[in-house]
Amino acid sequence: MRGRDYRASLRDRRVVHLNGRRVDDLTADPTYAPAVERIEQTYDETFRSGPDATNSLLVAPRSREDLQAQLPLIGSVDVLLLLTYQTLMTLVVAAQRLPESAAHNADRILDFVDDAQRRDVRAALCITDAKGHRRLPPSRQPDPDAYLRVVHRTSTGIVIRGAKLHVSGASLAHELLVMPTKTMKPGEEDWSVACAVPVATPGVTVIDRAYFDPSRPREDQPVSHRESVPSGFVVFDDVEVPHDRVFLDGLTAQAAVFAHSLGLWARLISLANMVRQADLLVGLAELIAEANGIQDIPHVREKIDEMLIHATLLRAGQVAAVAEAQPTRDGYYVPNDLYANATKYLGASRLSVMFRNLHDIAGGLAITVPSTADLASAATGGYLAKYLQAAEGASASERMALFHAIRDATADVYGGWQMVESLQGAGGLYAQRVVTRHHYDMDRAKADARESAGLPPGPQDG
Amino acid sequence: MRGRDYRASLRDRRVVHLNGRRVDDLTADPTYAPAVERIEQTYDETFRSGPDATNSLLVAPRSREDLQAQLPLIGSVDVLLLLTYQTLMTLVVAAQRLPESAAHNADRILDFVDDAQRRDVRAALCITDAKGHRRLPPSRQPDPDAYLRVVHRTSTGIVIRGAKLHVSGASLAHELLVMPTKTMKPGEEDWSVACAVPVATPGVTVIDRAYFDPSRPREDQPVSHRESVPSGFVVFDDVEVPHDRVFLDGLTAQAAVFAHSLGLWARLISLANMVRQADLLVGLAELIAEANGIQDIPHVREKIDEMLIHATLLRAGQVAAVAEAQPTRDGYYVPNDLYANATKYLGASRLSVMFRNLHDIAGGLAITVPSTADLASAATGGYLAKYLQAAEGASASERMALFHAIRDATADVYGGWQMVESLQGAGGLYAQRVVTRHHYDMDRAKADARESAGLPPGPQDG
Amino acid sequence: MRGRDYRASLRDRRVVHLNGRRVDDLTADPTYAPAVERIEQTYDETFRSGPDATNSLLVAPRSREDLQAQLPLIGSVDVLLLLTYQTLMTLVVAAQRLPESAAHNADRILDFVDDAQRRDVRAALCITDAKGHRRLPPSRQPDPDAYLRVVHRTSTGIVIRGAKLHVSGASLAHELLVMPTKTMKPGEEDWSVACAVPVATPGVTVIDRAYFDPSRPREDQPVSHRESVPSGFVVFDDVEVPHDRVFLDGLTAQAAVFAHSLGLWARLISLANMVRQADLLVGLAELIAEANGIQDIPHVREKIDEMLIHATLLRAGQVAAVAEAQPTRDGYYVPNDLYANATKYLGASRLSVMFRNLHDIAGGLAITVPSTADLASAATGGYLAKYLQAAEGASASERMALFHAIRDATADVYGGWQMVESLQGAGGLYAQRVVTRHHYDMDRAKADARESAGLPPGPQDG
Amino acid sequence: MRGRDYRASLRDRRVVHLNGRRVDDLTADPTYAPAVERIEQTYDETFRSGPDATNSLLVAPRSREDLQAQLPLIGSVDVLLLLTYQTLMTLVVAAQRLPESAAHNADRILDFVDDAQRRDVRAALCITDAKGHRRLPPSRQPDPDAYLRVVHRTSTGIVIRGAKLHVSGASLAHELLVMPTKTMKPGEEDWSVACAVPVATPGVTVIDRAYFDPSRPREDQPVSHRESVPSGFVVFDDVEVPHDRVFLDGLTAQAAVFAHSLGLWARLISLANMVRQADLLVGLAELIAEANGIQDIPHVREKIDEMLIHATLLRAGQVAAVAEAQPTRDGYYVPNDLYANATKYLGASRLSVMFRNLHDIAGGLAITVPSTADLASAATGGYLAKYLQAAEGASASERMALFHAIRDATADVYGGWQMVESLQGAGGLYAQRVVTRHHYDMDRAKADARESAGLPPGPQDG
Repeated sequence: MRGRDYRASLRDRRVVHLNGRRVDDLTADPTYAPAVERIEQTYDETFRSGPDATNSLLVAPRSREDLQAQLPLIGSVDVLLLLTYQTLMTLVVAAQRLPESAAHNADRILDFVDDAQRRDVRAALCITDAKGHRRLPPSRQPDPDAYLRVVHRTSTGIVIRGAKLHVSGASLAHELLVMPTKTMKPGEEDWSVACAVPVATPGVTVIDRAYFDPSRPREDQPVSHRESVPSGFVVFDDVEVPHDRVFLDGLTAQAAVFAHSLGLWARLISLANMVRQADLLVGLAELIAEANGIQDIPHVREKIDEMLIHATLLRAGQVAAVAEAQPTRDGYYVPNDLYANATKYLGASRLSVMFRNLHDIAGGLAITVPSTADLASAATGGYLAKYLQAAEGASASERMALFHAIRDATADVYGGWQMVESLQGAGGLYAQRVVTRHHYDMDRAKADARESAGLPPGPQDG
Repeated sequence: MRGRDYRASLRDRRVVHLNGRRVDDLTADPTYAPAVERIEQTYDETFRSGPDATNSLLVAPRSREDLQAQLPLIGSVDVLLLLTYQTLMTLVVAAQRLPESAAHNADRILDFVDDAQRRDVRAALCITDAKGHRRLPPSRQPDPDAYLRVVHRTSTGIVIRGAKLHVSGASLAHELLVMPTKTMKPGEEDWSVACAVPVATPGVTVIDRAYFDPSRPREDQPVSHRESVPSGFVVFDDVEVPHDRVFLDGLTAQAAVFAHSLGLWARLISLANMVRQADLLVGLAELIAEANGIQDIPHVREKIDEMLIHATLLRAGQVAAVAEAQPTRDGYYVPNDLYANATKYLGASRLSVMFRNLHDIAGGLAITVPSTADLASAATGGYLAKYLQAAEGASASERMALFHAIRDATADVYGGWQMVESLQGAGGLYAQRVVTRHHYDMDRAKADARESAGLPPGPQDG
Repeated sequence: MRGRDYRASLRDRRVVHLNGRRVDDLTADPTYAPAVERIEQTYDETFRSGPDATNSLLVAPRSREDLQAQLPLIGSVDVLLLLTYQTLMTLVVAAQRLPESAAHNADRILDFVDDAQRRDVRAALCITDAKGHRRLPPSRQPDPDAYLRVVHRTSTGIVIRGAKLHVSGASLAHELLVMPTKTMKPGEEDWSVACAVPVATPGVTVIDRAYFDPSRPREDQPVSHRESVPSGFVVFDDVEVPHDRVFLDGLTAQAAVFAHSLGLWARLISLANMVRQADLLVGLAELIAEANGIQDIPHVREKIDEMLIHATLLRAGQVAAVAEAQPTRDGYYVPNDLYANATKYLGASRLSVMFRNLHDIAGGLAITVPSTADLASAATGGYLAKYLQAAEGASASERMALFHAIRDATADVYGGWQMVESLQGAGGLYAQRVVTRHHYDMDRAKADARESAGLPPGPQDG
Repeated sequence: MRGRDYRASLRDRRVVHLNGRRVDDLTADPTYAPAVERIEQTYDETFRSGPDATNSLLVAPRSREDLQAQLPLIGSVDVLLLLTYQTLMTLVVAAQRLPESAAHNADRILDFVDDAQRRDVRAALCITDAKGHRRLPPSRQPDPDAYLRVVHRTSTGIVIRGAKLHVSGASLAHELLVMPTKTMKPGEEDWSVACAVPVATPGVTVIDRAYFDPSRPREDQPVSHRESVPSGFVVFDDVEVPHDRVFLDGLTAQAAVFAHSLGLWARLISLANMVRQADLLVGLAELIAEANGIQDIPHVREKIDEMLIHATLLRAGQVAAVAEAQPTRDGYYVPNDLYANATKYLGASRLSVMFRNLHDIAGGLAITVPSTADLASAATGGYLAKYLQAAEGASASERMALFHAIRDATADVYGGWQMVESLQGAGGLYAQRVVTRHHYDMDRAKADARESAGLPPGPQDG
């Protein structure tokens, strides 16, 4: 697919709503335009002709070196390609982990992955259910649709109903990958469903939220224009899915396979984004300190040092997650979940401090800086050019660009999205704790502790 | 003044720019409407007739009890009245602290305060200069206007030039109170200037930034609509100020008096806002936990407990700042700066953790929740009503209102403003450190430490 | 009582064990000598003759000013007098809070308090039980003595059995005040017991742990020699208590009264100690920075600033707890528990950072400094005098004294005691969270939050 | 060397002082006995006969895998062997980094290393000078000996004078490796000295401090007995060093080579110790939680989770430091300093929180637990056995052993040593900041930040 093909592909029957209105043509809407443009660009950049041409990011890694080589890509491609990567990797690993008895499902999965690679389509992940009463299981909810479920089974496929939340890029993708949000128990067969649904299928409605303000100039929101994609609240209102696109239906014991496989990649990607973001925040802090002429003041240096130490710790965790990657049954390599999790926890819990340090260094103009439109205006541009010049060499327009980038990335709607996404993406802090504990070698720690206390080995230390 | 008088008073010759365009009538502009309405309301609520009627918040406190009684007002009135309070209290204290030799200046100040109380006008504080090269003093800047200065002195007054940044409420006030941003040294006479300038004076230009998006429904931004006022970048382009409105001109030794007096009130108000905000964040956390049905999960309780302990610590600091308030020469009471400062530091450095905990509890919908316009829409409203219902008793619309309030207050442009304002308002973290150190009784601490080490009293402990 | 009377009073039949041996005469034992000396001194300093002479610290406060006046005493007297203060205040408040139906108990309590004031004795608090299986109530423990209980009731009194842990000063006091460690439920009558027992009663055994090393010179441990008292593990092996010393026996509903009354004073005293300790740590940090000649290095200043801000926040919490003290039924004033609790939480959770900053500033000599005996030795004294001199004016011996004080207070057995005591004294972090939540005005916070979200008042907001 | 040979080797002319007295025979002194025993044991365990037998830990790594293989050894051998490893690795790397012009020095170094490996001796590092006035350079100190220096040069060698602080294991080693503590400048030739000195050389005096109390039972201090070695204050009072043991004399430009080489290994070892310690603390926390019967209480679980996440982050940093190890000129591999530094910073700054969490979980008995001698005593043993039993299966003696291990490791003199050592070893927090900043790729961060702000590449981004 070339960029122009992608653009054309969006003009289908998809139903997308935003801020109370139906969006008829995404490619013509100012809220979607920047994302469409960026995705188009990536298509053009990664286009290779030939029958076997496949985007190299979309091939599952066969060694630690392969995985290592994907890291820089993870940190630079557009969000939708990243989501597609996450989707396909998850599916490949899930297929590996399904038992022999579900070999049929595994085959369908791998066929779908092959087909998606060949068609070079983009996919979004539909995981989080509406959940209704949080403390009740799916089968005991007043509204059985609180978790997406199979409402009918026909000779040609299944019919599903429910809503999936926080679906990044739903409106801009071709395929929606539906998966269970959690482990399922016997009796929850109808909720144990995984399948692929084209966005433009009848019954699918995407209700979007976007993370920048299209009425303000792009220069006032340089980061969100380039990086953000809308999040969709995706409703499946009795949507038919043919058999060859159903990857799980009723096998409660296998529901967790999808969630676990997803977790591995979700955390790696989340971590890669955190590493990139942390370096970006360090860079912005250093640049604005220089533009303000305060880069040598000790307490400013100390704050930047704290930031770069944090960025380095995140990168160390990423290095460890890849250096200790584990092979699957068939020799694919998956990131080490212990290191990925613990590091993701660190990143999520400390992002707020990164923001605070950056704001402390940047000063109040990070929020009060006038619009770049005021700089362009004949009535006010001269004043801003005169009074926003600071350290030698930093022009007012350069400084304004930095303040806008800082506000956009950390103190405006996209910055808010980052804060919440870093916490909630790939599971909240509590989830990271649980997973890290699960992987941590507590037996060894206890054995060491017993020895240090002069106690004999415990019963389970055998 | 009644509310309608206030509204009428805005239709003068003031020059206000926003996002690259001149705003002709603030009262008709959607960006300004909510703030104008709220200020109007306060005027109507606090209106008392009679010749001596004065807003009780605008009278300087004569006892700890007076000061105590102002606290709830500080936490509830509109921002512009609060700024006016801050302005007048600062002026009263500054007048007290000026030496005999500047009695003339003190008289002018008190006359201005009386007049402002009588006219019931609103004032904004113009403190922060453009500053140019941060490490150069005003007199050695390549552009001498980097700090606002007197460019001419005439028989009737002075002419000033420069820009003042981060001026909350500038465009909505009647009076601009110009003060030095820092201590001045001999040779910096022209920059040692304090005066009052009506907003509508020729040569004054306000370039505003606002903290909500007028194109989105008020219900999507319930906090910012009610609380935010624009920040102005205020340019004084050779503005004439008559003598009776000049409070300082050339007395370098007295420049610090204004900054110090301001600091006392700036920190008290900043602290009062932090206390109110902290309680609000606790309340939002508890409400959304209940609406999500997770309020009894231990790690959720723990996060809310951390938040309410923090809110209580801020309130304790406020209680201490008032309980240990100090009298001035003439018996006015000013907040205890040691406690106000240290507590402001705590509030500023931990706000990011309050946000993080709230986001952790609220979940991803804090950012991905669709617009209330989507709830009102026939095409999507039913879906949202069905799928956003959670715990028993919490309707989808109530839950959506909470998510919008949370995003607006903490993860959107107004939340970003809060983050930066809490850090930078009344001085950054470094400034709080310096002031606290200044007031801390280090001699006592050292004497105790020497005694504990078995050492004789030190030279200065005598 | 004069100092010499106190010393004589210790030579009774009390049974005290330490490190595996019986201590025959506390006044002659090097482990107890420093504490005995200090207590003796306080007796001599506070001695007033006359029949009504009472230590002013031991009189319950009748106003906020009374309470305020006790604060400096709390921060300066010896630990045993402080424990006596805590005991008597707790009893007075408990007597106030007992219902009419337990008036008899209240009378016995007040008689005991009067008598104790008159005799000028010292008391220690026996609260924490052995607890056995933590998740089982007293009545279902395999060993019913896991919580101290009444094993017999006779015509003249009761017989108790059990152990009380962490009893500071038990071996040095005259009276042991036994109280329930927790709320009791119906069926737990035998465990609902409070009474006073002289230390020298048959059946009482104190097993002590001390917090300095008597084989090392006093100059190497200047803080612990002066401040520490041993903690006793106190065993009551079928101890008889006459009726007039029994304050609670079987009234399960009233057991909590003692724990709650205790909490109020425990936290105030704990807080007062934290304030004093925090200032001491600031003082040590500043002195050692000066002695090392690094007090002006920015990152050192920053660390000290952080420390003094923390010390100030603790003091602010103390000011607030007294400024908002509450009167009891009969007009005694008790500290505000909301502020005392939240501040105690802050102190406990951040002490580790205070220690870290101090260690960072002091450098490795804080632990590696040789003994003062090496300075006194002819063979090595010259070397130490030569090589431990640092900044001009700071002699080697002064610097060594500071390093020893720092190690003793923060990085040796007494410092370890401080770390754990600050966390566990008056309840662990979790307990502080629960109590703060209990007192926090959540209804107001929720009402404010609903208003901010544009929601109508909630059902309970009335 | 076998264990018995090591023991015999200590009975030489070495001059060691402790607590004001000369220690005549280390092998007979209770303070030194545990360390001597442990070192002896290691000798016996690692003994291999044959002319080329070399302790595998003492061979410099030739690949990442070699380095990886050394990690478990680093975490398990006795401290003195570890110090020897650190010394030899430092020397090998330093030899590599010396310029051609100093080839002679490099040869002497490698000869010394070969000889030390062959003799299988133990070495200690003498780095930190007395420093005198911290802000004056060596050449301007009132006492020129404040930094160790060459006082004479003879035909056979040099004579050195000065003191080296914090020398772990000095009294128990065979060789003292003297190195400059910092970069030297022209004019500081006499202070630019590195050499090897046998401990038993005339003029060398070690003044020791030890980290446990030999008068208390080993069972009360199980960790420090096993792990601690004394720190020496080592005085060189005109000590002669023959030419073949002089590795640097006067080459100011090369002084830094030693410090930098040392840093690489100091941080790796420090990190390895932190990883081991962190796991130990996790294990102790889990064991004591189980013994107390509270391991399933949510806030306890949460605290342990925080601890194990921290332990995992440290391990991730170690994995990264080895995975990205760098080869030297001749193909030896040295740890990646960026990751080692940043992770060491994390470990040092958060150790206090690990201690706090452990203390919070363990409860007050961590400090108040009576001696194991009281358990052994007929008079009190029964009481302790009865009242210290807690959760089913945890005997009182097991629980006591855990409390003693916890106190010893974290809240007694050895725990204090750990706190300060973790901060100060291999440089304080400030030093880690400076080194991390030095290695961090700031140019890339700035280039990314400029791009995100829509700015063209900066001048240095080329």
